[in-house]
Formats: sequence, C-alpha cells, structure tokens
Amino acid sequence: MRLTLQTDYSLRVLMLLGVTGDRLVTIKEISETYDISKNHLMKVVHHLSVLGYLDTVRGKNGGMRLGREPSEVGIGALVRQTEPDMALVQCFPGGTKGGCRLETGCQLNGVLGEALAAFLAVLDKYTLADLLAQPALLSGLLGVSVAGHAA
Amino acid sequence: MRLTLQTDYSLRVLMLLGVTGDRLVTIKEISETYDISKNHLMKVVHHLSVLGYLDTVRGKNGGMRLGREPSEVGIGALVRQTEPDMALVQCFPGGTKGGCRLETGCQLNGVLGEALAAFLAVLDKYTLADLLAQPALLSGLLGVSVAGHAA
Repeated sequence: MRLTLQTDYSLRVLMLLGVTGDRLVTIKEISETYDISKNHLMKVVHHLSVLGYLDTVRGKNGGMRLGREPSEVGIGALVRQTEPDMALVQCFPGGTKGGCRLETGCQLNGVLGEALAAFLAVLDKYTLADLLAQPALLSGLLGVSVAGHAA
Repeated sequence: MRLTLQTDYSLRVLMLLGVTGDRLVTIKEISETYDISKNHLMKVVHHLSVLGYLDTVRGKNGGMRLGREPSEVGIGALVRQTEPDMALVQCFPGGTKGGCRLETGCQLNGVLGEALAAFLAVLDKYTLADLLAQPALLSGLLGVSVAGHAA
C-alpha cells in the first residue's frame, strides 16, 4: 500500500517550508535538499500553490513560503487533496479498470472503505505543526538556514 | 493510495473460491470470470497456495479450492501477506529509494504508521466469511456454479 509520490513530495515540501519560515525558498533548493526530481517538484509545487498551501513570489529573488500557519494545515485534508483518488482496489471510484463483476454484491468495498476512513481519521488528528515539533533538529538534518520568524 | 494488484486479485480469488465451495476451479475459469490476466493470476494463485490459503489438485481435472474455512481467513493477515511492503512513503522500510534526509527527525513516519495501524486494525475485524455474507447473490453475479457444500 503506497501513497503517491505527489503526496510524499507535498508533505516534504511543506515540512521544509515549515522549517524555513518566512524566507523564500526555490524549487532548486528543495530539489537539492531532498535529492528529488525538479520536474516532478514543479508539478507538486504548482498543485500546492493552487490549493492555497503556498505563497509564491515570482522573479529573480522569488521563491515560495507557506501560505498558511502550520497549525492550519491538516494532514488528512492534505492527503485527500494530493491523492488523485482513494481507489484502494480497482472497483473503487477512480479505480484503473472498469470495476469487477461482484459489483453491488461485494462486501469488500465496505470493509476497505471503513479501513480507509480509520486511516484518514488518524491523519485528521494531526497538522503540519505536529510534524515540525523539533524545528532545530529538522533544519539541521535538512541543512537549510532559517530566516524570518522561526517556524 | 492503492493496494497492489496482488492483493486485489488475491481477495477476488478467495471470494470466488468461497462461493464455489468444494468444487475445483481452474485459473482459466477465474481469469474469465473476472476478465483479468491469466499470467498475473498464476503468480497470485501460486503465492496464495504457498501461504496455505489454497488446496490445489494437479492434472486434467485439477484445479483449486479454499485450503481453509472462510472464517479462518483474516482479511488483515491476508493483506499483510500479499502487500510486498507497507511503505506508504519512500522513507518507510521497503520504500523505493534510499530514504530522506529528515530521517529520525521526522514525525511523519510515526503519524503515517499510526494511520496504517488503524487501517489494518479495521481489516483485522473481518474474515473472508464476512465478505461472503450473500453467497447466492455472489454466485449469481459471478455466474459460477456452486458444487459440494455451499460456502
């Protein structure tokens, strides 16, 4: 069971920006910090920006920072928005193929749906602020400088 | 968020065999019933057989049937055995890349681990017998005949 790279990278971007605070950070810096593809990051950042998670500033000294307080970024909400669908199996809405003959007779759908709800309910208990509980440790691990107000 | 095809197909195979009871069923019949790849099914069936979920009979009139009572097939245990790993993101053990710089400073791992545990705890409440609560409806939808003891 795997979350998409879109979600994985979104979480990492937001965590980094949670550490760097008001300082404007470039895609290049994020890409180098995590050693992940710049191209893929651009898509992720665009999506996060559209969703209102980021403030972006264009131009030579441009970059991005969080568009919301970390305590306002719910992890459950974020995952729901970054996963293209929650199709655990093919028969789920959004599943890759045209479903399954079991259709409405299938109890599996309900069982998996209940499990998914439990998964998301746990994520709903947390915000980005909870993931940033050790900002000094995180900035050290990431090797990034913190400017503006410390996150 | 998606379970692997291995898990998806494993669940479907076991549900079908739960409906057909003692009758021996071939891979061809399962493949045709669900309109899914025979090649992929062979791998799935082999794995289920190794795990003890199936009894297989070789030869011209061979086939397979459940190797355990449906009430003895826990859905949580099955999913744990059919998913190659539970690496929700890259940093999880089994993740596709060499992890992430956040390493031990990251609280995300703990949050996702808690969510995953909640997901599996729901699945642990159910067995294959729960998924077969309407055997007549299922055999009708699948278009399979039921022989031996009704599941």
